[in-house]
Amino acid sequence: MIPLALIQDLSEKTSSKILFFVLDGLGGMPHPDVGKSELEVARIPNLDRFAALSICGVTDPIAPGITPGSGPSHLALFGYDPIRFDIGRGVLSALGIDFPIGPNDICFRANFATVDADGVITDRRAGRLATELNRELCALLRHIHLPEVEVFVETESGHRALVVFRGEGLSDFVTDTDPQRTGVPPLPAEPTNEDAAPMAQIVNSFLAEAAMVLQGQEPANALLLRGAAGMPNIPTMPQIFSLSPGAIAAYPMYRGLAKLVGMEVLETGATVWDEFETLQEHWDAHDFFYFHVKATDSAGEDGDFNQKVQVLEDVDSLIPALQRLQPDVFVITGDHSSPAALSGHSWHPVPFALFSKTCISDDISEFTERALVRGSLGRFPAQEAMLLAMGHAQKLAKYGA
Amino acid sequence: MIPLALIQDLSEKTSSKILFFVLDGLGGMPHPDVGKSELEVARIPNLDRFAALSICGVTDPIAPGITPGSGPSHLALFGYDPIRFDIGRGVLSALGIDFPIGPNDICFRANFATVDADGVITDRRAGRLATELNRELCALLRHIHLPEVEVFVETESGHRALVVFRGEGLSDFVTDTDPQRTGVPPLPAEPTNEDAAPMAQIVNSFLAEAAMVLQGQEPANALLLRGAAGMPNIPTMPQIFSLSPGAIAAYPMYRGLAKLVGMEVLETGATVWDEFETLQEHWDAHDFFYFHVKATDSAGEDGDFNQKVQVLEDVDSLIPALQRLQPDVFVITGDHSSPAALSGHSWHPVPFALFSKTCISDDISEFTERALVRGSLGRFPAQEAMLLAMGHAQKLAKYGA
Repeated sequence: MIPLALIQDLSEKTSSKILFFVLDGLGGMPHPDVGKSELEVARIPNLDRFAALSICGVTDPIAPGITPGSGPSHLALFGYDPIRFDIGRGVLSALGIDFPIGPNDICFRANFATVDADGVITDRRAGRLATELNRELCALLRHIHLPEVEVFVETESGHRALVVFRGEGLSDFVTDTDPQRTGVPPLPAEPTNEDAAPMAQIVNSFLAEAAMVLQGQEPANALLLRGAAGMPNIPTMPQIFSLSPGAIAAYPMYRGLAKLVGMEVLETGATVWDEFETLQEHWDAHDFFYFHVKATDSAGEDGDFNQKVQVLEDVDSLIPALQRLQPDVFVITGDHSSPAALSGHSWHPVPFALFSKTCISDDISEFTERALVRGSLGRFPAQEAMLLAMGHAQKLAKYGA
Repeated sequence: MIPLALIQDLSEKTSSKILFFVLDGLGGMPHPDVGKSELEVARIPNLDRFAALSICGVTDPIAPGITPGSGPSHLALFGYDPIRFDIGRGVLSALGIDFPIGPNDICFRANFATVDADGVITDRRAGRLATELNRELCALLRHIHLPEVEVFVETESGHRALVVFRGEGLSDFVTDTDPQRTGVPPLPAEPTNEDAAPMAQIVNSFLAEAAMVLQGQEPANALLLRGAAGMPNIPTMPQIFSLSPGAIAAYPMYRGLAKLVGMEVLETGATVWDEFETLQEHWDAHDFFYFHVKATDSAGEDGDFNQKVQVLEDVDSLIPALQRLQPDVFVITGDHSSPAALSGHSWHPVPFALFSKTCISDDISEFTERALVRGSLGRFPAQEAMLLAMGHAQKLAKYGA
């Protein structure tokens, strides 16, 4: 990939508009009974017609064979090297609940968990704790005071919480206390470099206090921490691409990711039609829109093939409305694949189609994994999507004379 | 891409011959009225047959979405990383008029421009000055003498000229004096590193003198400089590939580029048939030929769809004559795309076909953007073209035991 500094040199502010319509976990896999993927079963005439007008392909979010989390897969889609720009889980958790991360903060993702009388973990998710109970326990944990750092304990949802340590000279070079399995006790935090020894002590002191606070609060009588991370230093999309991007996403984490890369996050509702209304209202205010649809991924993660088909058909009905806004470049893709057959994220390349008036359209008439890969873009790194969009939006100056 | 040093290790001198037939700005775009590109409209039976015998694909000269200038796009085609080997505008200008750049030279592209009584630029191109007037003004500017450096002022064409400073220890780390817009005065040259302060002074002294010389010469009463650059240090094609390459190009800039990478530049005439005669005459003297056709790009840049179709049909008639020379590897491609619909260079991938007896030919029977991309090479970096050619010419030794 060409360096971000060069992209920055070439990027020009123009009036053309780019729309990235991102269906989370878009890519699927053939259902064993029917031999067809979710996209192949769904009736999606508008997506099919969109493919016919577009340049088509499939993307590798990170690299062939690699299953991405939402953080790196979105970064790739926004034009960043997802290996170089590594966002820790702790930061993703913080972004997800709008926690204002500061420069001296180290964030952890926390799980409420159940331990038995011997301190052995019996449930890593505390029976998938109710969010309301989570809030009550976080309020209790906020009474913990450590000598040299400020500690924030915030509810995410269910059994998940965020723990942030704020202080001078803290380090994120500490290991997880979550062993990622039951039948063993929580691990102590260990420093992974010399400077991080005091930080590991701080984490372990906090957890010792937390264990006392949570005593008797079964099933949530323990706290497991993982994904220590400070705020990454990422150049923003306005800086790199001279864009003024707007983000429309109903879920906090995606709003947080969008904020991290310098997008203005727009208030929106829960359904794709709510999101569409937000898009329409703000259409004049931005030259790039990230429009995130979560339901495709949720159905995939739930292993619900038919539900994913249904969501795809619903989303299909939205396409003409999006087209009527006449974006100069209209990209429909996903951040990663989430086949219902695997009940989770997967490494499968992700369907991609880009329409603009400057496209030499391919001879592809179906919006499916098998059809799109035969398009002119073939299989390509997701990181190139932004360059393609910027090129077709005529927002990149000529390189060299 | 594999390192040049490794390619150098593997490259072997053999008697096989490679022909790169480069149609400048070859790639096009569908005409809005007919929905077909220039290549799709043109009757080009010889190119179609050539595609049928070849391995086919399309190239990205720099990266997806990036519109290349001729300098970097040619470097990529000759096997160089076009980001790493950056040739400044000043050097391209010098190459374009056969100026013999020396090791102590710093070259600038110069524009004659118009400034008003307050010194504010009103026209960056001095009303697109006649070349004859340009010559007269350059003759006047040659009377300027600076204490420590030699200055050369040479006409390119229209409002464009070349200014070269020659002296010990000069630097190209100085900013442009051309603000790239009207309504503001020219900028002073500023050093971009510490060592370049004297160079910035030299440039500014020269421009102060030039302002006096040009006083009253409206519309060409000012000179704007940009693209400071010294001769790049580029390993040559003979060094890297053990080739003895010959270049056939009617336009100075392409001859200059060829010289830069170590080709012998052959004297030739203005038409493709003149160029063909040159090729035929020198066929025995070289094992690699770069044959450049400019007319495809000129028609594209002029936005003349029908003219580009006509040029393609003319070029098509030359193909059998080229085939009769029996090159062992025959590549037909462009340096970049220049769709008539965009009246200029574009980011669209570039048609590519390579014939040799060792090819496993694709099932492609049309030499068009849409057909070629379905070939076995798909979409690939132009920088790989030389490796493919060297491989099929059996000029690369086995890598590893």
